[in-house]
Amino acid sequence: MTDIKPTILVVNDDGITAPGIKVLIEEMQKIGHVVVVAPDSPQSGMGHAITIGKPLRMDRVDLYPGVEMYKCTGTPVDCVKLAVNKIFKGKRPDICVSGINHGLNNSINVLYSGTMSAATEGAVEGIPSVGFSLDDFSQQADFSYCRPYISGIVRQVLDNGLPPGTLLNVNFPKTDTIKGIKICRQAAGRWVEEFDERVDPYGRDYYWMTGRFQLEDRGEDTDAHALNLGYASVVPVQFDMTAHHFIPALNSWSFDVASYDGNE
Amino acid sequence: MTDIKPTILVVNDDGITAPGIKVLIEEMQKIGHVVVVAPDSPQSGMGHAITIGKPLRMDRVDLYPGVEMYKCTGTPVDCVKLAVNKIFKGKRPDICVSGINHGLNNSINVLYSGTMSAATEGAVEGIPSVGFSLDDFSQQADFSYCRPYISGIVRQVLDNGLPPGTLLNVNFPKTDTIKGIKICRQAAGRWVEEFDERVDPYGRDYYWMTGRFQLEDRGEDTDAHALNLGYASVVPVQFDMTAHHFIPALNSWSFDVASYDGNE
Repeated sequence: MTDIKPTILVVNDDGITAPGIKVLIEEMQKIGHVVVVAPDSPQSGMGHAITIGKPLRMDRVDLYPGVEMYKCTGTPVDCVKLAVNKIFKGKRPDICVSGINHGLNNSINVLYSGTMSAATEGAVEGIPSVGFSLDDFSQQADFSYCRPYISGIVRQVLDNGLPPGTLLNVNFPKTDTIKGIKICRQAAGRWVEEFDERVDPYGRDYYWMTGRFQLEDRGEDTDAHALNLGYASVVPVQFDMTAHHFIPALNSWSFDVASYDGNE
Repeated sequence: MTDIKPTILVVNDDGITAPGIKVLIEEMQKIGHVVVVAPDSPQSGMGHAITIGKPLRMDRVDLYPGVEMYKCTGTPVDCVKLAVNKIFKGKRPDICVSGINHGLNNSINVLYSGTMSAATEGAVEGIPSVGFSLDDFSQQADFSYCRPYISGIVRQVLDNGLPPGTLLNVNFPKTDTIKGIKICRQAAGRWVEEFDERVDPYGRDYYWMTGRFQLEDRGEDTDAHALNLGYASVVPVQFDMTAHHFIPALNSWSFDVASYDGNE
């Protein structure tokens, strides 16, 4: 480490009072100058949502001694945008860390996760970014054994940087004996049987989203596999979603649009 | 076309009463049996958000003659999940089309767009899926010249299928003389100067998200370039967000986590 401490933006999706972000803040205080911008209420499953057409508020709060903290009425991605534009005013922090999420964000969950979308937005803004998640939804989750992995990973990112358009998705298994770190790809999988259908007191149907995660990948190089074995998984993530491999085949398609006469 | 008409799921993010979805429904009725599940209110910028911890409602509505339509209180992705689970009951439609969005969803907007996230969720569910967007936010936008392109693209997808984990992001320029279709990659770009800061009547700050799109890509193979030239852009999109190219370099990093004694 040099004498000049790095500036670290901390965000999450479980909200500013979540136990997970407290652990992340404490670890980051050992490394650099910490600025926290987090939602004022839980925002799990918000994906890459942004707030359009409604005003946003961001207010200073003092939850932990010596930490510059702001609560925000918006989504996790809004928090990153507000931090970059209104707190850092375009002068980017050295790293953006998101989490620690209460619950895994491996496999397809990278799409739904506000934690990962906040880190992705950090990367879109040109900031080296990492999302952290633990396989434990409980408010009493024990994050302690994640601490050395988090600081180890953050120090490596500060030292080595990340390629443009790339961030890291780090997931921890629920175990106090993490076997180590495995670099992985995102496992194929999806959620199935997703709704609990009920009838309200007025006779109208409504639905609770529920269901279970179904792994559809037998690969031994996936995040799901590493977590099952007791390793922390690290997946490099990109937000260029182009399926480059399919461009040549698409170019061979013949689109019949000639018959249009404008009067249909 | 065979005698058995394909089943087509139509979704959007601008809401079930938007002009764009009406045009899409009309075009799809010429091709197959249409089922519409769309948000009951505008859901622009919702990205891949899902509704957790709040009940969802989905009710039949009859806006257009002979069309099976449902309005949903949830996000665009919720609409797709409810359609698959509660309407199709696991028997997948032949194609999922989303839009036509009022406003472009090229480049980085694929992340923020509810239109594209709904199509992505269709692909996650194993349904060939396409999102359509027009470069015109107006409620009076003229979608007519998009019609033959939409039906041409949908017929090609029905005939050829799409590879697993792949969908299409189709954007139309604002012009009545579309020059044709270009297969593209997602342009690099981002939104800058994003907040209009104001003071409310009670003396408190608040923010409106605003800003402008900044293209950061000089490539001539991008969706942004094709649209600028007056072509409809077609980008194949994947939801494996793994930055595969960066895995070898990450494997060479040395993560220092040995010093943890559990008492920190």
